[in-house]
Amino acid sequence: MDLDAMIDGVRGGKRRALARAITLVESARSEDRKAAAALLDGVADPRRQALRIGLSGTPGVGKSTFIEASGLMLIGQGRSVAVLAVDPSSTRSGGSILGDKTRMPQLSRDPRAFIRPSPSQTELGGVARRTREAIALCEAAGFDVVIVETVGVGQSETIVAQMTDIFTLLLAPGGGDELQGVKRGIMEIADLILINKADGDMKAQAERTRADYAGALHLLRRRDGDPEGFPKALSVSSTEDAGLSQAWEEMASLADYRRGTGHWDRTRAAQSRHWFEEAVRHGIVRHLTADAATRARMEDLGRAVAAGETAPSAAADRMIEHLFGRD
Amino acid sequence: MDLDAMIDGVRGGKRRALARAITLVESARSEDRKAAAALLDGVADPRRQALRIGLSGTPGVGKSTFIEASGLMLIGQGRSVAVLAVDPSSTRSGGSILGDKTRMPQLSRDPRAFIRPSPSQTELGGVARRTREAIALCEAAGFDVVIVETVGVGQSETIVAQMTDIFTLLLAPGGGDELQGVKRGIMEIADLILINKADGDMKAQAERTRADYAGALHLLRRRDGDPEGFPKALSVSSTEDAGLSQAWEEMASLADYRRGTGHWDRTRAAQSRHWFEEAVRHGIVRHLTADAATRARMEDLGRAVAAGETAPSAAADRMIEHLFGRD
Repeated sequence: MDLDAMIDGVRGGKRRALARAITLVESARSEDRKAAAALLDGVADPRRQALRIGLSGTPGVGKSTFIEASGLMLIGQGRSVAVLAVDPSSTRSGGSILGDKTRMPQLSRDPRAFIRPSPSQTELGGVARRTREAIALCEAAGFDVVIVETVGVGQSETIVAQMTDIFTLLLAPGGGDELQGVKRGIMEIADLILINKADGDMKAQAERTRADYAGALHLLRRRDGDPEGFPKALSVSSTEDAGLSQAWEEMASLADYRRGTGHWDRTRAAQSRHWFEEAVRHGIVRHLTADAATRARMEDLGRAVAAGETAPSAAADRMIEHLFGRD
Repeated sequence: MDLDAMIDGVRGGKRRALARAITLVESARSEDRKAAAALLDGVADPRRQALRIGLSGTPGVGKSTFIEASGLMLIGQGRSVAVLAVDPSSTRSGGSILGDKTRMPQLSRDPRAFIRPSPSQTELGGVARRTREAIALCEAAGFDVVIVETVGVGQSETIVAQMTDIFTLLLAPGGGDELQGVKRGIMEIADLILINKADGDMKAQAERTRADYAGALHLLRRRDGDPEGFPKALSVSSTEDAGLSQAWEEMASLADYRRGTGHWDRTRAAQSRHWFEEAVRHGIVRHLTADAATRARMEDLGRAVAAGETAPSAAADRMIEHLFGRD
């Protein structure tokens, strides 16, 4: 498939072209990077905007079931849904546990859904870029909703929050120790906390957990430009479809509110600038440290700094001098 | 005062030499930067470690009274105390509201205390570097405790947390709206939350606030390598000295625990490396954007990216090509 055909295919919403396009942006090969840049420029269309939802939750919380039920519900409402996965841990396992189509059997067979597993990562900093570009491709392909799923390893929530419009945290019912699995910092970026599995024996427990989180969220300041009541905690059941449509209505209404105030456009522009600046910094450092002597010098100075033998800024001055010569 | 005399003076714990040394590291002039690097290398001594406490709280919470009472108590226990202020907002006001000696009348007159107001900031990224270097100088001067105070504007807590051993958040008693002034993200980095003004009419209210925060902290996961019970919420009164010694014992015991597990050394080494790498990145970008054409190109591409006309990574590729030529 040549580049023009791929651009047309993506813009025409063809799943096969979209899948190939994502494979292209996932490649770290130099010639593929050039083609990927041309592809992304070719499909770019500021008028096509999906609702980008970041979704985080630890394993066992029911993310697959939640996405399957949500996706089928959204499709039933006439919307198309893409699901992408961010799994920085896949570097170690050599492959991803996320995004497996067997996890969402019905949704993955639906022609209005597109599910893409997380690629195994090879290059540092590559997870963020690949995911962001895959989102852009899904958006260009005309999907109404793009769900970006993460297991929350390392910095992945912060990264996902920086490329989505709304961030949702999925939790299991439970008190005390079970709740302690929530990583520090996630509650702070969540727009919506959903207590999943609010059904059967767990229903009362889920409601107590919801109330606990609602209380904790109340202690955090509302974000500038957000309506009263956000961030919000709700309980849902993915198996009984209880609270699911309400949760999605909350997300849609928050998105509408932000569109109305201009917050949405400002945030998207700031996110794009952020990734541009990050990519420039990354590119500069990569370019400069391609040289083995430079890498060795950086490593030596870093060791001396960590051992307390030299001050960080003095070491940095020496590094800059090494790179560019004396001022 | 020549550089050798300044180094001797700082290492001898002379307040006058320390004050001049901090003035030197605060300067952005190129020749002063070179002298400051030599000074920092000259005084560096990994064996001298103060307990570095980051302290944050919104205006009106009683930070000055808390620091005054804490400082006098610590001095009474035979320890020396330095107080530094980080106030990124001072760029706008042209001077700092923090660190004013009149705020801590008794402590500022005590020979075992050293109080340094926040400088007015001129250079981007300068606040972090200056504060970090002032901490290093106070540590080299042999202070037992260095309190780094911040009002919590912008990213200042994250910056302060990255250069201190323990982060303490000071809050006023109160529920609902009053509490909403706490910035998102602070609770996540605090080791200790102190509800101040737990005296007189406010005592019961302070206890309720403490219980609310203790509950919210319970929902956050304990940090790797920290003992049971942290992060912790306590109530204190700076005017009645109630709970003050307990609060400082908690900080000391957390520090001891972390020293015992090796967490302390690892964190300090990681912090130093972080600041080294930040300073190198900052230096590279400053060096490269010293050129007006480069700055203009970066600005143009940033605008195109924010407007959605080009993809962030495609724009970054163009910027790298502009800087270094084609690969």
